[in-house]
Amino acid sequence: MIEQRRADGSLRHLVTLEGLQRAEVEALLDRSRGYARRLGERPPATRTLAGVTIANLFTEPSTRTRVSFELAGRRLGAEVVNLEVQLSSRVKGESMLDTIFTLQALHFDVFVIRDAEPGVLSLVATEVAPGVSVLSAGEAHLSHPTQGLLDALTVRQYKGDIGALRIAIVGDIRHSRVARSAYQIFRLLEAREVRIVAPPALMPEPLEFAGCPRFETLEEGLEGVDVVMMLRVQKERLARTDVPDGDEYFARFGLTARRLARARPDAIVMHPQPMNRGVEIASEVADGPQSVIRSQVSNGVAVRMAVLETVAAGLAHGRGKA
Amino acid sequence: MIEQRRADGSLRHLVTLEGLQRAEVEALLDRSRGYARRLGERPPATRTLAGVTIANLFTEPSTRTRVSFELAGRRLGAEVVNLEVQLSSRVKGESMLDTIFTLQALHFDVFVIRDAEPGVLSLVATEVAPGVSVLSAGEAHLSHPTQGLLDALTVRQYKGDIGALRIAIVGDIRHSRVARSAYQIFRLLEAREVRIVAPPALMPEPLEFAGCPRFETLEEGLEGVDVVMMLRVQKERLARTDVPDGDEYFARFGLTARRLARARPDAIVMHPQPMNRGVEIASEVADGPQSVIRSQVSNGVAVRMAVLETVAAGLAHGRGKA
Amino acid sequence: MIEQRRADGSLRHLVTLEGLQRAEVEALLDRSRGYARRLGERPPATRTLAGVTIANLFTEPSTRTRVSFELAGRRLGAEVVNLEVQLSSRVKGESMLDTIFTLQALHFDVFVIRDAEPGVLSLVATEVAPGVSVLSAGEAHLSHPTQGLLDALTVRQYKGDIGALRIAIVGDIRHSRVARSAYQIFRLLEAREVRIVAPPALMPEPLEFAGCPRFETLEEGLEGVDVVMMLRVQKERLARTDVPDGDEYFARFGLTARRLARARPDAIVMHPQPMNRGVEIASEVADGPQSVIRSQVSNGVAVRMAVLETVAAGLAHGRGKA
Repeated sequence: MIEQRRADGSLRHLVTLEGLQRAEVEALLDRSRGYARRLGERPPATRTLAGVTIANLFTEPSTRTRVSFELAGRRLGAEVVNLEVQLSSRVKGESMLDTIFTLQALHFDVFVIRDAEPGVLSLVATEVAPGVSVLSAGEAHLSHPTQGLLDALTVRQYKGDIGALRIAIVGDIRHSRVARSAYQIFRLLEAREVRIVAPPALMPEPLEFAGCPRFETLEEGLEGVDVVMMLRVQKERLARTDVPDGDEYFARFGLTARRLARARPDAIVMHPQPMNRGVEIASEVADGPQSVIRSQVSNGVAVRMAVLETVAAGLAHGRGKA
Repeated sequence: MIEQRRADGSLRHLVTLEGLQRAEVEALLDRSRGYARRLGERPPATRTLAGVTIANLFTEPSTRTRVSFELAGRRLGAEVVNLEVQLSSRVKGESMLDTIFTLQALHFDVFVIRDAEPGVLSLVATEVAPGVSVLSAGEAHLSHPTQGLLDALTVRQYKGDIGALRIAIVGDIRHSRVARSAYQIFRLLEAREVRIVAPPALMPEPLEFAGCPRFETLEEGLEGVDVVMMLRVQKERLARTDVPDGDEYFARFGLTARRLARARPDAIVMHPQPMNRGVEIASEVADGPQSVIRSQVSNGVAVRMAVLETVAAGLAHGRGKA
Repeated sequence: MIEQRRADGSLRHLVTLEGLQRAEVEALLDRSRGYARRLGERPPATRTLAGVTIANLFTEPSTRTRVSFELAGRRLGAEVVNLEVQLSSRVKGESMLDTIFTLQALHFDVFVIRDAEPGVLSLVATEVAPGVSVLSAGEAHLSHPTQGLLDALTVRQYKGDIGALRIAIVGDIRHSRVARSAYQIFRLLEAREVRIVAPPALMPEPLEFAGCPRFETLEEGLEGVDVVMMLRVQKERLARTDVPDGDEYFARFGLTARRLARARPDAIVMHPQPMNRGVEIASEVADGPQSVIRSQVSNGVAVRMAVLETVAAGLAHGRGKA
């Protein structure tokens, strides 16, 4: 596990939530809350990160996560540059690092990286110069720490103290970085219970998600929970399961109003998006009164502002003196 | 037809020119004139839209219309984010709206959308939250309202009172959103005459372009007009006409100096670009003294500044108080 | 050769270093030095170019040169818009110029253009309006003037007076715009010697690189030099040489520590990037103490800031009065 902190203990990278202290996560959530706005409210705008340059390194041009980080940076006054870069180290680790070192020499302060290959982010975080921070925007099936933070922020907004809550994570747990980061943050915040609910083929390995009760039907898994976290099902993965078809999956694992009724009546429903309506979730639920899916999106910008500000704070100040 | 105004009567969306009052269009043109600059002059720059976030939703990365809207927004102080998004509702209307609602939750104030599918823009305009505006940057063959406005602004600049003018729209009227928006605005501004000139296969349906005299030869169609609006011919559409080839089309419908001589001697020549030189227009005309094609481009930024400012005005002020 | 200066003698375009006076290049290098920063230092940020709009016209979305120009412009306060445009005049010179004239009508002040086709840049520079500047970001095999400037700046930083230095340019000289611009600037700055070192198939035509001693082995070519400028070898070009394979090329022409020992002990090693490690250069050298490759990248932004400021200076001031 890589060291994400500076010598003075401050947060420098955010590649994973693993290894963070509860107080660090609480501080990030508190700062995020200060930036959270409801739909229709004016988004916050500061100049805290004026003079800071952020590189958005994504392999696709316009994912919502890229835009969320871009807006977070720009609303803090930073310069944000989007780059479509293939960071794969499969061909040659050194040429991937050459790309990073080149960008670093252009005086970027923060690299926001989405990468499909496990380990690339940690390698980059280990190799960059002391003044540079690395933030994950999603790493393989492993980690999506800002998604974990926005999920926790959303749960807090709607349900208050996480220590009192039963949370069900539902769907393709096996391949999901969203599930892994959610598991990490809700365990750290000492949720009363974190359950995982999936058909056998989409369950994680036995040693993963330690301490989580496992359920193979939605009906049992949702019984009495306060929070239902749905995951996106990749249709191409269904072929490898015993429910190989979208319609059939929906019939057995789709979240309908009837199934949701097993949860507590004030339970909230979450989804990281994009949704496959009619596969993992029914529209009546996605658009229903218990859905907080759009709040998750708004909270994403708030969380990314908080994270950017946290890692870049030392930076901007240190530089102010230069 | 969708409602484009707020309850207080102010303009909120601009998806079509249809249904606008003459006074509304006049106000937009007056405001545009304040932003219009000649080549070599300093472009205007204000901070009127500081704090406003604009999403440019185009399916291709770099059309001139995208850049025109981007510069318009940035020269007013807004944040502009470019997104390459496929908004097609063919697969599923709901997932298209999910994309829109996600972007809305990121606190975008204005969506500028170019879309090939009729109806998507109106659907989006109907569904977005009250604080959000939708502007068309071109919709199928139906509508391109900012092009209509820039065409009207250009005609006014060069020819003065539109009520005194005979205007010929020439070429592939049938498939052209530029022609439809031009027709709407020149009728609204009570041009003396709006003619359409096209080979039979490119003529619109009989009920469209009501009140426009129709001409099937350029020689007759240009007789005595003050304004010649050429359209781009899609070469792939020629195959379906009785003039299936670019050279042949030029021989029968290309605007040459000789044919232009049928128009009034002070007639102006317009084209929305990109031009097929040697197909619908000869270079001697495109680059000749009667061409105002480059002014149209400059006026495009001015018009988009005026439209952005108009729809976002309430917004920015309402928010200032938040 | 095109005229790159205005009537008052000030620099308007930078399409090539050919024809520049030594004093002009010295002035650009002096100004660049003011913008150069070491890794970890705060990059400079001014508002000198506020109100200036720069178009980055590249055929690929995210080359390092594009980002270098983008950061240079933004750190001077300019608006920078990236466009993926194919400027090829192969189909039709006029339609390429139509694209340029359209952008010009949008009130761009500077076009930064990378183009694979010789002559397009000069054509554009000749045709644009008086207030518009054209900067090369790489033209075919011919010219890459800002790379030449950053190479000279880097050599000066590390080795001082260029008049005292022996410089070896090594590799695929024949197809390299980097080599041509380096040759031009080091001749202009009166380097003691500029050598070219390449296998026969990659040597330039006999009349090019006048006055440069030619060497066909690395061992001889590096003997006693102060500066080793490596070039990128396009693997697809190796097939046409007598060393058709990457490994074989490395065996005969790769820069290893042992071969570098032929140069002066304080010689520096440069490379324009991206590197083919294990083909033209060994990692022990690329990452070794004599490598100044990352400084070249940093200096690239400084040089581009200096060039942008130089060509736009008249502009911004002239406009300030408008």
